[in-house]
Amino acid sequence: MIDRIAILGTGLLGTSAGLALRTAGYKGVLAGWNRGTEGGETALKAGAIDFLVPDPIEAAHASQVTLLAVPIHATLDFMEKLAPVLGPERLVTDVGSTKRLITETATRLFNTPERAAFLPGHPMAGKERGGAALGDANLFRGAVWLITDDPSAKRSPRATALVEEWRQWVAKMGAKTLDLDAARHDELVAWVSHLPQFTATALSALLEEEVGGAPELKDVGGRALREMTRLGASPFSMWRDIAHTNTEAVERALVALEQRLAFLRENLRTPELRSEFERANKFRRE
Amino acid sequence: MIDRIAILGTGLLGTSAGLALRTAGYKGVLAGWNRGTEGGETALKAGAIDFLVPDPIEAAHASQVTLLAVPIHATLDFMEKLAPVLGPERLVTDVGSTKRLITETATRLFNTPERAAFLPGHPMAGKERGGAALGDANLFRGAVWLITDDPSAKRSPRATALVEEWRQWVAKMGAKTLDLDAARHDELVAWVSHLPQFTATALSALLEEEVGGAPELKDVGGRALREMTRLGASPFSMWRDIAHTNTEAVERALVALEQRLAFLRENLRTPELRSEFERANKFRRE
Repeated sequence: MIDRIAILGTGLLGTSAGLALRTAGYKGVLAGWNRGTEGGETALKAGAIDFLVPDPIEAAHASQVTLLAVPIHATLDFMEKLAPVLGPERLVTDVGSTKRLITETATRLFNTPERAAFLPGHPMAGKERGGAALGDANLFRGAVWLITDDPSAKRSPRATALVEEWRQWVAKMGAKTLDLDAARHDELVAWVSHLPQFTATALSALLEEEVGGAPELKDVGGRALREMTRLGASPFSMWRDIAHTNTEAVERALVALEQRLAFLRENLRTPELRSEFERANKFRRE
Repeated sequence: MIDRIAILGTGLLGTSAGLALRTAGYKGVLAGWNRGTEGGETALKAGAIDFLVPDPIEAAHASQVTLLAVPIHATLDFMEKLAPVLGPERLVTDVGSTKRLITETATRLFNTPERAAFLPGHPMAGKERGGAALGDANLFRGAVWLITDDPSAKRSPRATALVEEWRQWVAKMGAKTLDLDAARHDELVAWVSHLPQFTATALSALLEEEVGGAPELKDVGGRALREMTRLGASPFSMWRDIAHTNTEAVERALVALEQRLAFLRENLRTPELRSEFERANKFRRE
């Protein structure tokens, strides 16, 4: 049924989705739009899209499915612009890293029998840097693709069918869908995704000040140091909207880690240190 | 000149050293001792040692070089026991992860013209778990092997020659030696090795409490989470002596990270967040 998809935003995720759809056997049209010219051209050359369109709203209007693969605030902007112009025979979906705001907006603007469907999605896949040039047909293989659909959505039969078909394409791209409440999603990713990132950023920034002036000393840290700071290379542009749209949950996770580090520090010479190592070992064993 | 080496402790590092020496072309005898029977047998079967000896002191007495590859407190015990029985034609070296105490003890008990030489060493190589079964001839390839020799050491010509020859074997095992003051060593590894480890332990222990009950949710974190918690699998036994012998430097590093995380948390919505990401990016670029 789906034979025309518009990919709005051909960064790492948009480009990878185009490549993954083709690898999974999608034969329809892939229209692409990107804010910057270079990323669009790179995605086009890689075969992730068939052509570039100048107007993203027109492209969405002409496609059964629109995949929003832009930062969260840009996703929210597109939702406001697309809702009035798309009918109930259209599906819009996204890849944003926080879902509460997007899912609330979807309930407000989409998902009635007269309106287009919106399926909030979040593939747990990425690299420490973005960009079309890193696009990868296998990026989603083995990854979890979280979906935070509003259970109160009342869609037209046609829109419901589009949602089901899109879920199948996600599976064909190699990802495992997992349905989750949007607020629970944002809590969960604060722990398992945002906290690890902000920890790596803080650790890398601290080490830049402490040993950054003597780059040969970084070799001393070996694999463990490289691994614990790899995410330090992530650009601010990929994390700004996450910090802005999941602030409270991230704050709670950061406070908890600060307290945990203080606890460990106060127990470097007590038996509590053993218990803390054992808890950490348990996390890795399960 | 060196044709008999005693490896005391056939865990990951001792076993790997035996295998690496053989791969590097060492043709002499490798005598092995291990506190536990199983680790000794595993090292023997792997070809890391030629035979097991029941008495480590006798083995050291009979060998030109003794490699101490046991935890730090056991290393300090061995130093006390070996110093009175070894003459100036012997070299003892070690692989301990903190060096201030060991180097001070070396100056007190070794490194005079009448006594054996002691060369404090610390290969920056390891795995998140220990044990002879993980022994690897290539463990030291490309790694830095820190040496914190006392510049005031006054050794016999014979002992000096042994030190030089051992340094060559370290290079032949594929490691790059780097000479460092012992106190500076302990400060440095607190930042680039101990802080990353204790951070991973605290993060893993925290996540065990927060999401440990729902193991399927760990998949959600993907590669980033796995990487940031891999060191969480490290056993307490590998880190206890480090926590006990480098406490002050580790405390300083942990306080600094706690403050850094608090700073980031307080700036999730301010332009400071961008600067912090840029500092982190810089650390990874150099």
